[in-house]
Amino acid sequence: MEIREKLLLLKQQIEQRLSSLAPNHSPDLLRDSMMYSLQAGGKRLRPAMHILAAELVGGQADQCIDMACAIEMIHTYSLIHDDLPALDNDVLRRGRATNHVVYGEAQAILAGDGLLNYAYEVMLSNALRYPTKAVRYLKAMQMISQAAGVTGMIAGQVMDVFLEGKEVDLKQLQYIHMHKTSDMITGALTSGAVLFTEDEKQLAAVECYGRNVGLVFQIVDDILDITAGDELGKSRGKDVAEGKATYPSLFGIQKSRQIAQEKNEQAKAALEIFGSKADLLRQLADMMLERSM
Amino acid sequence: MEIREKLLLLKQQIEQRLSSLAPNHSPDLLRDSMMYSLQAGGKRLRPAMHILAAELVGGQADQCIDMACAIEMIHTYSLIHDDLPALDNDVLRRGRATNHVVYGEAQAILAGDGLLNYAYEVMLSNALRYPTKAVRYLKAMQMISQAAGVTGMIAGQVMDVFLEGKEVDLKQLQYIHMHKTSDMITGALTSGAVLFTEDEKQLAAVECYGRNVGLVFQIVDDILDITAGDELGKSRGKDVAEGKATYPSLFGIQKSRQIAQEKNEQAKAALEIFGSKADLLRQLADMMLERSM
Repeated sequence: MEIREKLLLLKQQIEQRLSSLAPNHSPDLLRDSMMYSLQAGGKRLRPAMHILAAELVGGQADQCIDMACAIEMIHTYSLIHDDLPALDNDVLRRGRATNHVVYGEAQAILAGDGLLNYAYEVMLSNALRYPTKAVRYLKAMQMISQAAGVTGMIAGQVMDVFLEGKEVDLKQLQYIHMHKTSDMITGALTSGAVLFTEDEKQLAAVECYGRNVGLVFQIVDDILDITAGDELGKSRGKDVAEGKATYPSLFGIQKSRQIAQEKNEQAKAALEIFGSKADLLRQLADMMLERSM
Repeated sequence: MEIREKLLLLKQQIEQRLSSLAPNHSPDLLRDSMMYSLQAGGKRLRPAMHILAAELVGGQADQCIDMACAIEMIHTYSLIHDDLPALDNDVLRRGRATNHVVYGEAQAILAGDGLLNYAYEVMLSNALRYPTKAVRYLKAMQMISQAAGVTGMIAGQVMDVFLEGKEVDLKQLQYIHMHKTSDMITGALTSGAVLFTEDEKQLAAVECYGRNVGLVFQIVDDILDITAGDELGKSRGKDVAEGKATYPSLFGIQKSRQIAQEKNEQAKAALEIFGSKADLLRQLADMMLERSM
């Protein structure tokens, strides 16, 4: 199977499971506002990577699809809060009105809080279905919580907001990219693998792949912000207009593409120990790079 | 030892541990804004109850103090987000400027997100120190996550915001009180007990105590909003001014006190199976009731 076909299949499975995980005993307003953003589409890249990494080391998707969904919930909460008037003040996301535009600011804050906390509710319930693997699940959840947390995604977001409109150097840009984007991509991958293997070499390889592919993802996103049109469902050139630091603003587009290519090669090289079993993840890395070419 | 002395001792231990748990590898701004609200004082009632419930069933405080601190982090994040301009728009909390007044709205949102997520980081790291008790820790974390979550505290908060200024009936008031306040108090207690016992009768007794004491706590808070002065560190009569539903607004103060007294008796009766070992929790229930008399 090719990666595009596999991603479509995973997207279907993830979206089906996300629907069935809707919190039916919550107030309608809370459930609806959470599900509005959770069902807004998107590539479901992070949860797909979680499952791909699990399968790479011999794991079963049905034992980790809830954790994959939880990762998507965490990603979605971060988008809802990012879009708020006090932060990025975005009114469009994936071509649809953002959460606070539809539900108001107060409920958007609570929908985000709800999704973050519910991600842990879902992961803990799932873990308790496999009591003999409790420690593995604890480790996987720890990886996700740290990737999403105050030395991970939230740290990146804090610095991104703090440095907006200021002169930013390469070190600061790398800090923001690594934590705001790459940490969750890496965490999605390593948490999927750690559920099914204790082999340190395999875990290190998956992590190295994640680090590099996460950076490719962010650099390509920066490039697309300048070169792509409205098909992204958000305003073109928004980063530039807001004075956000990006790879193209520091290096230009051509050099940025070259860095992305190098990181892509390093990502694929990290998977060598898996042989052809890692072909899907190699294709995925190439696919992410190609978006920018 | 009397409960007041015990609470002072626990408060010291909890605050010391909270300080040592400060996330030192986070950006200064994030750590400072999280710790600003976390170190704002308060009675540390929820974490103290967690430890009291653990000790009631024979548990050790050192195995659950991190979980107690995580409960305080979750409570604190909920206060930061509650105080935001889009929600309660409070500028004072415990006599100090609220988080967004000091750090701005964007960072206050992120400080709240940070505390919520960090609570899970702390609980997961703690759980992994006791791998033979992994399932117990998973259960305790599940209780906390559900108490704090989209059928618990966040659900109560959503309804509280949604119904503000509207005509509210007793059923809706009870929904808000149970979920916004009582769930976390009950969750703090039951999660402390479940770490150290599997006895269903004991767990049910602790839960019943929590449900009743949680309601007493909320009714007394409602009464104090009307009768107390500025010593609460917040504006007197704020609930009334904002058209919030409260027990006194539905029943009057005298009848509200009577309901609180009944619930207090039920709370203490629930502890009968523990004999004199539950004296501290009985005194705690009385102490909470006496605030309103």
